[in-house]
Amino acid sequence: MGERGPGHRVSGGGQAGAGAVIAHGGDLSAARRLFPGAPEPWIDLSTGINPVPYPCPPLEASLFRRLPSAADLAALREAAAAAYGARADQVVAAPGTQVLIETLPRLMQPQRVAVVGPTYAEHAAAWARAGHAVATVPDPEAAGEAAIVVVVNPNNPDGRVHDAHGLFRLAGRLSARGGLLVVDEAFADLEPVESLCPGVGPGLVVLRSFGKTYGLAGIRLGFAVAEEDLAARIAAALGPWAVSGPALAIGRAALADGAWRAEAAAGRRADSERLDRMIARAGGRIVGGTALFRCADFPNGINLFRRLGEAGIYVRRFESAPDRLRFGLPAGKAEWCRLSRVLR
Amino acid sequence: MGERGPGHRVSGGGQAGAGAVIAHGGDLSAARRLFPGAPEPWIDLSTGINPVPYPCPPLEASLFRRLPSAADLAALREAAAAAYGARADQVVAAPGTQVLIETLPRLMQPQRVAVVGPTYAEHAAAWARAGHAVATVPDPEAAGEAAIVVVVNPNNPDGRVHDAHGLFRLAGRLSARGGLLVVDEAFADLEPVESLCPGVGPGLVVLRSFGKTYGLAGIRLGFAVAEEDLAARIAAALGPWAVSGPALAIGRAALADGAWRAEAAAGRRADSERLDRMIARAGGRIVGGTALFRCADFPNGINLFRRLGEAGIYVRRFESAPDRLRFGLPAGKAEWCRLSRVLR
Repeated sequence: MGERGPGHRVSGGGQAGAGAVIAHGGDLSAARRLFPGAPEPWIDLSTGINPVPYPCPPLEASLFRRLPSAADLAALREAAAAAYGARADQVVAAPGTQVLIETLPRLMQPQRVAVVGPTYAEHAAAWARAGHAVATVPDPEAAGEAAIVVVVNPNNPDGRVHDAHGLFRLAGRLSARGGLLVVDEAFADLEPVESLCPGVGPGLVVLRSFGKTYGLAGIRLGFAVAEEDLAARIAAALGPWAVSGPALAIGRAALADGAWRAEAAAGRRADSERLDRMIARAGGRIVGGTALFRCADFPNGINLFRRLGEAGIYVRRFESAPDRLRFGLPAGKAEWCRLSRVLR
Repeated sequence: MGERGPGHRVSGGGQAGAGAVIAHGGDLSAARRLFPGAPEPWIDLSTGINPVPYPCPPLEASLFRRLPSAADLAALREAAAAAYGARADQVVAAPGTQVLIETLPRLMQPQRVAVVGPTYAEHAAAWARAGHAVATVPDPEAAGEAAIVVVVNPNNPDGRVHDAHGLFRLAGRLSARGGLLVVDEAFADLEPVESLCPGVGPGLVVLRSFGKTYGLAGIRLGFAVAEEDLAARIAAALGPWAVSGPALAIGRAALADGAWRAEAAAGRRADSERLDRMIARAGGRIVGGTALFRCADFPNGINLFRRLGEAGIYVRRFESAPDRLRFGLPAGKAEWCRLSRVLR
């Protein structure tokens, strides 16, 4: 029947296969299969999710029962627009950024795409699945003739930051020839980086995550910020009611809470500096990171991954760099102590 | 940049426009704009959502905080498979059926699509948005050379039921020439209709809604049931973690609760018969419906819609049939009484 896209995803986190390569962090059932003898409870450091979650407001039963209302969605978009420095009609709410990463490629005719990497693998995978010709390039300037360029800023896993001015210029050049710059600011909330959201215009779409910053990855909420026409097309592809009632209410409250965000930025910055010291003590060389995760190379990273796993601590590894590990932040004294016992 | 699809959605429930035509029920903010003087609280009869919701199990904080796990997703798919009479590897979980209605057309090369209607308008709209040539036909047999046929069974809004044997044969014919039959069983749970889920094979995908039956439309949960390859492709298009942690937990508990479902079927059947009697008393001719909504033609439906609205009761109307109204079920004695006072 004329299928689009080259094939199926097989990933530990998806619905399309079981027992396959573990493509994502955050899944302790995979950790338990790898290390069946590890002590419980597991400490999950395999993601970059804030371990100190935003305190959820009380949730009315009607949020679960009724279809999410247009008024509630509008209020969420207003709160997101204020938090990101954009206009509400430039903001699209989605059930997680991942759905946006899957959706964008299917809105564009197949063409040449350059992903600046290594980076979060789902970008290249999603564009390839939708039939685009994808190349990974080391720098935005190396994108060549690609019509679409994807940059994660700050980058995951190495924390590399791209200059906003340069990205705006790139968006302008791509736009002039009908292209698009996708900037994934998943980890920008708590960083001293310049967001591109206030300057979105033709040829630019910015992705913003909610669950990582606010420690609420389970509610599924993320945003695209783009000029009004593209925002409307993305929203149409998701359909009405894509975001749940509870996520609308929680997101609205959290995004309006600048004081909490400032405190989270300071707190997680201190945590990440503490983590850096532990990593250095264990012989690790910090590659980079953000306030929510740290990435380091170790003399024998494979062995350290195993020792951490046997101690019930799950970190993220990378097939392309076997001695590189990414650590999320522990939560609370007991977790810090257990991590410290392995990293010595 | 080579945009797919003909244009933008403008709908009251979406993010792509404000103040436009009200395309969906379930949005009381639209009702309040139409009838600013109506008494509060509004009675929302504009949807087919069960007014007696499934009692949500207690939700652990971790469901909000952690990425939904592969194990939780697998458990939900098992529960859905058991409830629908399918295999778990044939079940795709999504954040509401609407996202599936948007996603399916973008997985297929543009071709001729026949939607059996009048029916839920989003089917034809979504296929058209993705660039397909869509025709509405009165019967599955009238689909002609269409490669893709969409049937809602039982149909919304008129409750028409299609014979399962005939639909299976149609799926077989479509499959033989590389086509696809989409059967939307959104309202099948509480009806004495034969589901196609136990017989899914090549050329057939069945959609099942969760929120309507269980009165939990706010959590966003729905399913596609298809043979394993197509199910994997749909799952890949949604990406991992498309369904929220709370929805995974609630869905798993509710779908395993056959006793609740049997009680809901009997209770709502009795409610719908009571509603039929009220409608008849008001001069309405029942066109059809399901246990969750009733559709009727009135001598002056426009006037009745207005009188209901002025009394704070919001029902669904249809631009194509101005004297036709669809009533969801009232909840509780006070709502029944208020409705009865207008329908006399």
